[in-house]
Amino acid sequence: MSGQLAVIGLGPGDARYLTREAAEVLAAAQALYGYGPYLDRVPPRAGQVCHASDNREEGARAQAALAHAGRGARVAVVSGGDPGVFAMAAAVCEAIEAGPPSWRALDLLVVPGVTAMLAVAARIGAPLGHDFCTLSLSDNLKPWELIERRLDAAASAGFVIALYNPVSRSRPWQLGAALERLRRHLPPSTPVVFGRAVARPEEQVTVTTLDAADASQADMATLVIVGSRATRVIARSGRSPLVYTPRAAAEVNA
Amino acid sequence: MSGQLAVIGLGPGDARYLTREAAEVLAAAQALYGYGPYLDRVPPRAGQVCHASDNREEGARAQAALAHAGRGARVAVVSGGDPGVFAMAAAVCEAIEAGPPSWRALDLLVVPGVTAMLAVAARIGAPLGHDFCTLSLSDNLKPWELIERRLDAAASAGFVIALYNPVSRSRPWQLGAALERLRRHLPPSTPVVFGRAVARPEEQVTVTTLDAADASQADMATLVIVGSRATRVIARSGRSPLVYTPRAAAEVNA
Repeated sequence: MSGQLAVIGLGPGDARYLTREAAEVLAAAQALYGYGPYLDRVPPRAGQVCHASDNREEGARAQAALAHAGRGARVAVVSGGDPGVFAMAAAVCEAIEAGPPSWRALDLLVVPGVTAMLAVAARIGAPLGHDFCTLSLSDNLKPWELIERRLDAAASAGFVIALYNPVSRSRPWQLGAALERLRRHLPPSTPVVFGRAVARPEEQVTVTTLDAADASQADMATLVIVGSRATRVIARSGRSPLVYTPRAAAEVNA
Repeated sequence: MSGQLAVIGLGPGDARYLTREAAEVLAAAQALYGYGPYLDRVPPRAGQVCHASDNREEGARAQAALAHAGRGARVAVVSGGDPGVFAMAAAVCEAIEAGPPSWRALDLLVVPGVTAMLAVAARIGAPLGHDFCTLSLSDNLKPWELIERRLDAAASAGFVIALYNPVSRSRPWQLGAALERLRRHLPPSTPVVFGRAVARPEEQVTVTTLDAADASQADMATLVIVGSRATRVIARSGRSPLVYTPRAAAEVNA
């Protein structure tokens, strides 16, 4: 019997954002692997075994799930958001490349989901309505100098920037340093969005400006969007403002 | 009575990728606006009026939908993929900013969806597993020189690049020129993915290299992903290859 490994995106917190495909593949799995809080979102099912692990153990989790599927089971690894964006799909591919040849023969199914930047953008308007970059601020797996270089490249070329993993207990200063770096390139009035725990009860989305943006507003559950020179804010009386980036860019220096 | 305008992402072709929220908001709408082929994906519902328009009429469609919602109706505008990524959410925000003050008082709901690059990436592995840029190749709304500048910035800083709108009847040469531009920065062996009509019956996903990539492989329904220097291909006997970008980047010049 040949096993299957599915890598499934749960979308942001609420089950309303789960796709039908993700729900079906989850229901068919015999074993689930994932970071505990993500597994907690999946409705329990009789006969389905859950293997929770810490969020820093992606490599080991991928190997364990592949080994389990290699024994002929239908196994699913769950990610919040989309599994392909700073999540488990790359960890599984790394493990397949480094692992035994039999892992390449497994049926691998990646099930996409609504990633955090799309959910945050939807809450506030359309800040990603024009060209944008998606960058993880974690320097656990790449040098900080590379992150700075990418921030410089993205901001000076007029990309809107979505920042994943802005802060953690072991990475307290990186978001502040990134905002300071971006102030070299962008006007003080550039809109900045902090989207925290979108689609969960504790959701909080705030709009500020680059000069006023305070890194202490962000935590591990926050996604930060820094606008470009073209990004605009529409004030609305009695409603939260809209932030959007127009489809058209008139100038090369936009 | 106060109207509502919902801007809804249908995800890639198949209804399996629709979120539960999108399905519920679609079902509650009294009128739907959208590009004809997207409206055709929505199951018909008694009493619901559909207003189809051409895909080049985004501004006029946004205005018509806002005016309809302004008369107190529950109106939905549909987009393929995610409405916030080169789609209707920005067009609606533009119309709100330029329109009558009453449009700012409307209840605006943006419902996110699985955008094309996430669906294509899921089919092939995890090419977007590290920092990436998302760029529209359409020069209808921005100068070609700006697109070139962004391609230069993205490739030289080590971002993977997802290209939307690579080609259309009126824009036949842009993808070829973009690939040529990227060859200045990236090795000939850089993996390139052409994802056509993902999640539809005519789906076709092919993996090639930057030197062999041929713009004529793409059409209006294609999303192109160009890897970085770090992107890898895993050959699998009897299965299609996997393309992924590792989570770690060791070098500043990666």
